[in-house]
Amino acid sequence: MADQAAPARPKTVTACVLTIGDEILSGRTRDANLAYIATYLNRIGIQVREARVIPDVEEVIVNTLNEVRARYDYVFTTGGIGPTHDDITADAVAKAFGVGISHHPEAMKILEAHYRQTGAEFTPSRQRMARLPHGASMIDNPVSKAPGFQIGNVFVMAGVPAVMQVMMDSLADRLEGGATMLSRTVSGQIGEGTIAEKLGELQARHADVGIGSYPYYRGRNFGTSIVMRGVDSSELDRVADEVAALMRAFGVEPVMGDPA
Amino acid sequence: MADQAAPARPKTVTACVLTIGDEILSGRTRDANLAYIATYLNRIGIQVREARVIPDVEEVIVNTLNEVRARYDYVFTTGGIGPTHDDITADAVAKAFGVGISHHPEAMKILEAHYRQTGAEFTPSRQRMARLPHGASMIDNPVSKAPGFQIGNVFVMAGVPAVMQVMMDSLADRLEGGATMLSRTVSGQIGEGTIAEKLGELQARHADVGIGSYPYYRGRNFGTSIVMRGVDSSELDRVADEVAALMRAFGVEPVMGDPA
Repeated sequence: MADQAAPARPKTVTACVLTIGDEILSGRTRDANLAYIATYLNRIGIQVREARVIPDVEEVIVNTLNEVRARYDYVFTTGGIGPTHDDITADAVAKAFGVGISHHPEAMKILEAHYRQTGAEFTPSRQRMARLPHGASMIDNPVSKAPGFQIGNVFVMAGVPAVMQVMMDSLADRLEGGATMLSRTVSGQIGEGTIAEKLGELQARHADVGIGSYPYYRGRNFGTSIVMRGVDSSELDRVADEVAALMRAFGVEPVMGDPA
Repeated sequence: MADQAAPARPKTVTACVLTIGDEILSGRTRDANLAYIATYLNRIGIQVREARVIPDVEEVIVNTLNEVRARYDYVFTTGGIGPTHDDITADAVAKAFGVGISHHPEAMKILEAHYRQTGAEFTPSRQRMARLPHGASMIDNPVSKAPGFQIGNVFVMAGVPAVMQVMMDSLADRLEGGATMLSRTVSGQIGEGTIAEKLGELQARHADVGIGSYPYYRGRNFGTSIVMRGVDSSELDRVADEVAALMRAFGVEPVMGDPA
């Protein structure tokens, strides 16, 4: 009789998102990228475990990048790769990896053709956007042409959401995902404190499922959404059914999903 | 003749914002608190220098908190202080400070009265929200009663934006601000790359003013906003005038402020 190996447990692949930019820290601009990147990565089995927002300061970028690229499988940065003096991300990444940086021939060709077509001058500032750390590979940018780049496990993208999003599509096939985190949501017009005890007991019985409780307030319509996250679809369904039954026991009709 | 001391340069007061919650990292919930807190603090002379989003994992909260509370003047956390099993922030903060945690008599009184009034049962889960690290002082919460707390230079607030915002008002008079960062914005329908060289020279001449360049795209209306930040109002005005003159030299009519 052949050995019956236990099915391999899908590995966990982790990521960190670094948002680089004074404008996010000053409150001037509200970040829209983290939720997009986290959702995108989650679909392909990569879990964002940490996110940081840091200023356009070289030393901070270098130190932070070296800390998180050692700790997580992947690092995704946004911001600081435009043509102006405050765009220092590419130089900081080169410094973090201890490599040089110079104009990348293929990136120069792409940008040169782009500016020839648009009739704008291909100034030295615009040429800065073709500078890549040595050993980096380009990330295509069909929207505004100036490429992002990958070096090691670090993916460097633009901060403008439309450009970042197309870069995610360009780089996605280089990523190797692990277990995809699935989720179920059950909502009901019930206070968190009412359901908390029973929910804690449910969590204790299902260690492989993360059960989160999120109150919502929409004028007079308030309640709680219970979100279950895990890799086993049928276990999630069982836990979701238990949560629904729990709400009914308190006289509350549960809704599968977010509140209406 | 009395000594003429040079005017004291206002000191820089720094802060870090810690967003605690799996739901932000999974992409399910889009953070709305960082921009609010950063703007609020900036008005009273406190500059957010870093922000982190971390999961509901005790060890991560403890280590992160101990790292950033040593590095910045103030730390503001949001999330994880509700009544359910996944609300572990208060315990993690106590652990980070190496102190015990127990039900705070005044917080118990406030919550007891609240639930008596609303007719809901004051369950052990709801009583959890009255647990404060030893040595902590309450942060009032007129919206939903369960208090936040301050311990050392760390302010622990709710994640629900409406509750976080009222807590900021409750705690603001405990903060000591330094120099208030002021800003000017000049926008124009000009490409970043067109203005980049001149802008770099302008930055080199004004080391005390941070000059940021932010492209915007709104359908066919695209351009660049130049944001100047610093503590000296009249220097900011001078730099803003120079930026406006610079745009006019390229045949672009500048708008003071964000693009229309």
